Amino acid sequence: AGPEPVNIREFEAYAKATLPKNAFDYYASGANDMITLRENRAAFERLRMRPRILRDVSHVDTRTTVLGDPVAFPICVAPTAMQRMASPEGELATARACARQQTLMTLSSWSTTSVEDVAAAAPIPKWFQLYVYKDRELTAELARRAERAGYKALAITVDTPVLGRREADVRNRFKLPAHLTMANFAGAGGSHAEGTKDGGKDSGLAAYVASLIDRTLQWKDVQWLRSICNLPIVVKGVMTPEDALVAMQCGVDAIWVSNHGARQLDTVASTIELLPDIVKAVNGRCEVYLDGGVCRGTDAFKALALGARAVFIGRPVLWGLAHSGEDGVYQVLELLKKEFEMAMQLTGCTKLSDIQRSMVTHVVSYQSKI
Amino acid sequence: AGPEPVNIREFEAYAKATLPKNAFDYYASGANDMITLRENRAAFERLRMRPRILRDVSHVDTRTTVLGDPVAFPICVAPTAMQRMASPEGELATARACARQQTLMTLSSWSTTSVEDVAAAAPIPKWFQLYVYKDRELTAELARRAERAGYKALAITVDTPVLGRREADVRNRFKLPAHLTMANFAGAGGSHAEGTKDGGKDSGLAAYVASLIDRTLQWKDVQWLRSICNLPIVVKGVMTPEDALVAMQCGVDAIWVSNHGARQLDTVASTIELLPDIVKAVNGRCEVYLDGGVCRGTDAFKALALGARAVFIGRPVLWGLAHSGEDGVYQVLELLKKEFEMAMQLTGCTKLSDIQRSMVTHVVSYQSKI
Amino acid sequence: AGPEPVNIREFEAYAKATLPKNAFDYYASGANDMITLRENRAAFERLRMRPRILRDVSHVDTRTTVLGDPVAFPICVAPTAMQRMASPEGELATARACARQQTLMTLSSWSTTSVEDVAAAAPIPKWFQLYVYKDRELTAELARRAERAGYKALAITVDTPVLGRREADVRNRFKLPAHLTMANFAGAGGSHAEGTKDGGKDSGLAAYVASLIDRTLQWKDVQWLRSICNLPIVVKGVMTPEDALVAMQCGVDAIWVSNHGARQLDTVASTIELLPDIVKAVNGRCEVYLDGGVCRGTDAFKALALGARAVFIGRPVLWGLAHSGEDGVYQVLELLKKEFEMAMQLTGCTKLSDIQRSMVTHVVSYQSKI
Amino acid sequence: AGPEPVNIREFEAYAKATLPKNAFDYYASGANDMITLRENRAAFERLRMRPRILRDVSHVDTRTTVLGDPVAFPICVAPTAMQRMASPEGELATARACARQQTLMTLSSWSTTSVEDVAAAAPIPKWFQLYVYKDRELTAELARRAERAGYKALAITVDTPVLGRREADVRNRFKLPAHLTMANFAGAGGSHAEGTKDGGKDSGLAAYVASLIDRTLQWKDVQWLRSICNLPIVVKGVMTPEDALVAMQCGVDAIWVSNHGARQLDTVASTIELLPDIVKAVNGRCEVYLDGGVCRGTDAFKALALGARAVFIGRPVLWGLAHSGEDGVYQVLELLKKEFEMAMQLTGCTKLSDIQRSMVTHVVSYQSKI
Ligand SMILES: Cc1cc2nc3c(=O)[nH]c(=O)nc-3n(C[C@H](O)[C@H](O)[C@H](O)COP(=O)(O)O)c2cc1C
Ligand SMILES: Cc1cc2nc3c(=O)[nH]c(=O)nc-3n(C[C@H](O)[C@H](O)[C@H](O)COP(=O)(O)O)c2cc1C
Ligand SMILES: Cc1cc2nc3c(=O)[nH]c(=O)nc-3n(C[C@H](O)[C@H](O)[C@H](O)COP(=O)(O)O)c2cc1C
Ligand SMILES: Cc1cc2nc3c(=O)[nH]c(=O)nc-3n(C[C@H](O)[C@H](O)[C@H](O)COP(=O)(O)O)c2cc1C
Repeated sequence: AGPEPVNIREFEAYAKATLPKNAFDYYASGANDMITLRENRAAFERLRMRPRILRDVSHVDTRTTVLGDPVAFPICVAPTAMQRMASPEGELATARACARQQTLMTLSSWSTTSVEDVAAAAPIPKWFQLYVYKDRELTAELARRAERAGYKALAITVDTPVLGRREADVRNRFKLPAHLTMANFAGAGGSHAEGTKDGGKDSGLAAYVASLIDRTLQWKDVQWLRSICNLPIVVKGVMTPEDALVAMQCGVDAIWVSNHGARQLDTVASTIELLPDIVKAVNGRCEVYLDGGVCRGTDAFKALALGARAVFIGRPVLWGLAHSGEDGVYQVLELLKKEFEMAMQLTGCTKLSDIQRSMVTHVVSYQSKI
Repeated sequence: AGPEPVNIREFEAYAKATLPKNAFDYYASGANDMITLRENRAAFERLRMRPRILRDVSHVDTRTTVLGDPVAFPICVAPTAMQRMASPEGELATARACARQQTLMTLSSWSTTSVEDVAAAAPIPKWFQLYVYKDRELTAELARRAERAGYKALAITVDTPVLGRREADVRNRFKLPAHLTMANFAGAGGSHAEGTKDGGKDSGLAAYVASLIDRTLQWKDVQWLRSICNLPIVVKGVMTPEDALVAMQCGVDAIWVSNHGARQLDTVASTIELLPDIVKAVNGRCEVYLDGGVCRGTDAFKALALGARAVFIGRPVLWGLAHSGEDGVYQVLELLKKEFEMAMQLTGCTKLSDIQRSMVTHVVSYQSKI
Repeated sequence: AGPEPVNIREFEAYAKATLPKNAFDYYASGANDMITLRENRAAFERLRMRPRILRDVSHVDTRTTVLGDPVAFPICVAPTAMQRMASPEGELATARACARQQTLMTLSSWSTTSVEDVAAAAPIPKWFQLYVYKDRELTAELARRAERAGYKALAITVDTPVLGRREADVRNRFKLPAHLTMANFAGAGGSHAEGTKDGGKDSGLAAYVASLIDRTLQWKDVQWLRSICNLPIVVKGVMTPEDALVAMQCGVDAIWVSNHGARQLDTVASTIELLPDIVKAVNGRCEVYLDGGVCRGTDAFKALALGARAVFIGRPVLWGLAHSGEDGVYQVLELLKKEFEMAMQLTGCTKLSDIQRSMVTHVVSYQSKI
Repeated sequence: AGPEPVNIREFEAYAKATLPKNAFDYYASGANDMITLRENRAAFERLRMRPRILRDVSHVDTRTTVLGDPVAFPICVAPTAMQRMASPEGELATARACARQQTLMTLSSWSTTSVEDVAAAAPIPKWFQLYVYKDRELTAELARRAERAGYKALAITVDTPVLGRREADVRNRFKLPAHLTMANFAGAGGSHAEGTKDGGKDSGLAAYVASLIDRTLQWKDVQWLRSICNLPIVVKGVMTPEDALVAMQCGVDAIWVSNHGARQLDTVASTIELLPDIVKAVNGRCEVYLDGGVCRGTDAFKALALGARAVFIGRPVLWGLAHSGEDGVYQVLELLKKEFEMAMQLTGCTKLSDIQRSMVTHVVSYQSKI
């Protein structure tokens, strides 16, 4: 797999050079003009670190918990569909790498390995990401399987009543390769397991979603989900303080600030810019996570300074898989962990609670001083 | 016509590759440095959507009315001159595509098909865009013909006492191709029907305007127009709240915020940035429309959130014509309608009144939160 | 000279393609990183026009006066040295073109044609730009010659105690070509007429300035100038309201806001951004002019809206000369006049006093409305 | 060495073309995405000079003192490691050039010439930059050697508990070339003198730092340093007003605002943007210096206007060395001195105390005036 990449961007470049276009485009692209995709990165780059000096940083402790479960560092794995397109072992490789790094993996409903097989692959807390299908019984059964398999929480994705328009996938008429399936639906009727459908001129995944996913999903369905399984519920895809408040009222267990990796509605704000208002609305009543554009240790630091409990990464894991399977994911996590540790050391922090709100500011804040 | 474009930009690229330079440049270009042309797009891209989640979006109703007439969705067709340069059927194709999509077409005074023929082409409400000529009787007769032919409103273009300087047209010495005429002036004396004149080193259309169009047009002429026909009057080209207030006093029926597709005075603001102040001044007393740079469903959504009743598109229709005539215009409208529907679904809106002011914000608004 | 350029930038491109590098670089370049050079243009582009509609613009009157002398439009010619490098007729061509256009020319002290010959070339008000030499008698005599030759004002350049570092000139070891001289110093002793000196590794003009120009120039010398001739005195190179106030106290006749075409100190602000504060400080007590980056009719409009009496152009005249001598300068002025007239028509202005402060705003002013 | 460069950027281009990649990359690069590296320059470019006119600038006095020692102009030399990679004479050449220019050199702990040899090379005040090693006795001895050799102050670098991640060095597996050593540690045990270690896939210098440098360094160690030698203590690497206040409490002799040339933690602010708050906190109680991105005379001017006593340059010295050793460093300093003098002349300043706070402003400050 060539020389080891020195940053996430190099992992991505490797993936671009080696994956089939169909797969790389599906992984890489964002909705429409990809303005939010660029903003997810650019917004992190507009924030400035404010380092404190002359503190003993010989020992740095990056450990924390998410919903009570320990992780070695606050960078976890977001659910991304169809990981076997990146590497034969797919989700199994991801699970094993997370176990080695002692961080949390979130398995996608649309995994190409079943929820049970992934659970068996590695003995470490995992979450299960749930898409709610029109077929509610199928959905309930999926949630219960996750519970039985030992997953620790359900992350309900609420930003996908329809699939965002990723134009590369439309051009490619994206289809899940024939040798792969949506493994969690192997036993389900209809075309659930096919993963994509004939979209005509559209993306095959968009057609799949249009046909099978429930567009009527509402806050009251969160109660329903609670009634069918005992797992804590994380709402993935919150983008406003208004909805964070509703989520509090519904008693959700955690809020996951996400714009779905800029793949759903283009020109929504970057997640790091959305975070402060949501953290303020939540006001400590539950944990708040963030994903979107995280690919530097300083990104994680910034999100924590602005109130996130942990961050999740989507595409970087796929680039790791494409590079060298389990090892690649391990390296990606190692890289980010090390960068994050260095960010702590170079700001004078030795434990996560040392990461203060005042350690991050917006680049424009300096204008008024001059 | 090759593979179907996946967005408006690809329709434009196709037009650029296939139209004669003379025609494409006339359609595409803006005044002088084209700063406003870029701003019309860039300003939309600087706005952020604020999506609400967990609402039942299984049924989306995009219907509305403009001046009382129903349209299937709030994206209508702005008047653009000389459509037969893009496709043999020209304005007839546009009219038929609008009818199939049930949206409103505005016919230009400078159409290459007569007002009567376009009316006959498709049974659907249409507006007529009026340029006021020095020859007032000719002008009055044109307005009356539109009324007789069943057009539902007159859109008076007020931003063109002289033609803006589109430098590509100057370089090209732009002329309407010999086989085409300004069809509405077939019976008129002089050179009215020629469409362009010998501009020497200038654009032939600029010379035409200088010779024939009335530069003395004033607010009092709005009364005159009212006296000569019974159609509601829309003032197209309002750019300040000051003029919106005058328009209210003159009792106009609607205000159309437009910078003429950035073709008149360079460095005027983008229309989406002009909109809020004008909406505030109008304060609900009449409908307000916007055109300029709309080429994404989210653009329409943003304009509606900021107070527009509907948006109009100019160039995208021309790119559709150039691609495949009536079908191309149909596809362009379909694309925008679908994008707009998706923008509604992904913000939790099921009817136009769900589109709230708070659902759009400026990207810089996030700076002060960090 | 090829097809007639349609804008100033095309005149410049022509000059770049045809002039010797030594000359073009001297004309085109700015100090050091040329940040201010770009800003002089960019700042104009950041301003937005606010057009009023439905006003009778059939007759537009662009006439005004500068220091009491009539000009056909408020775009005058700034002093630029060594015009014969651009065209054999040099300053004579410029003078004749200005006469044909009825606008004001300012002759540089460093002209390659004498003050008397330029005066004789064309019967129209002119100003003389004065550099103060260490040799004060020589300086006084030069001022008196201008007075005798009928020049109407002295523009004292106050921003050049040393010559700004234009790095292209340093690389080129810039020298005035051997067949040309600083014609006003033909009779002077020493090396005054040579125009440049052996600068070793430096620009030959920088060496000339270092050797001959008076670095001790102070406000009290303005009194001295007044004592030696009777012409009104314009201070060219004011960049702060603080100095504008001092100028008022010294009783100068007019203030010329200039950063010397971004050729002296890099990273000073663009002149259009400097203007408002200075206009405010002057508060109507004298005329205020602006130069720097003007190359569109809208630029002139913006400067007038922000309080300038007139604008001056430097490089565009040189590009006109390089293109086709007197005719080229005539065309450049014609182009700008026509663009300025169109800017007036498209904002609903028919006389200069219609150009209101409220007709120009900064692009960022729209952010707070959304 | 080709034609003499006309600015620092050209010196850098020369270095890039001639140095081994390993060395050039080590010198040039910054941490990670090099956002701060670009910002160190960009932030200077966003500041605007406000020149005063008509002041006698025939004599300009740039002299000042740093910690009481005279320098001919307020641009001094920052410590940069391993100068013999750029030129055989390395630190000796730098010392001699500084002596010729009468400015202050700061010698790095990691010099490739010993502290004593550099002292002997040129009779002029010098500072010694101290890295604190885990081996405290070794550290103390190094400080004492500097004192004995006549250095006038200790600059303690506090921003390097671990080495920032410069990705080019990781890719290059950077190593100090075999013929060079960290000359100050020739007599020390272990691998201190090797300068780099086998970093595996990492930079050899990062491994060296990880193994030998003391990560426990704290404010109390400043007292310890004071106890082991009598030199004034400068804290190099202050980035917040909070830490400046602590430094005051610890009684340090001067504060050096630095982000280590953007080589430690990426996305910290540019130093010039950090300066004002720190100057305000210090409130005149000690001298404040700045380094980072200074490569124009106006940069030095801006830093002084915002409260710095002097600025220091890192990379420009290395580019001078690479160009022509001692002469190159001399030329670099000459260039900056001359640019700085010109900045003073063109703003009407003849002595450093003429450089006022009001002479520098942020480019965005002009927006609100329009
Ligand atoms: C290829 C791909 C597939 C994804 N699949 C899912 C999914 O099945 N379920 C889900 O909730 N989110 C999915 N996401 C969104 C991710 O969980 C996450 O929100 C996003 O990737 C974070 O942004 P990042 O990729 O910039 O780290 C997917 C993202 C990508 C890039
Ligand atoms: C080629 C072309 C021709 C136009 N002709 C007319 C016209 O005849 N009458 C008119 O009122 N506006 C005319 N317009 C302006 C449009 O009605 C509309 O304001 C503008 O195109 C909207 O911007 P957009 O092209 O970015 O959608 C024309 C615009 C273009 C691009
Ligand atoms: C090539 C050149 C020569 C100039 N020579 C003089 C001069 O001799 N005296 C003077 O006061 N200003 C001189 N200037 C400055 C101009 O008068 C004027 O301030 C500047 O050119 C305006 O900017 P613009 O070139 O962007 O229009 C010169 C400018 C240029 C470009
Ligand atoms: C190649 C290089 C080596 C450096 N070595 C040291 C060092 O040994 N000790 C130190 O305190 N700073 C070191 N620095 C930082 C400089 O002292 C200084 O802070 C920085 O270079 C200033 O930024 P500039 O290079 O943009 O002028 C080094 C910087 C560079 C570029």
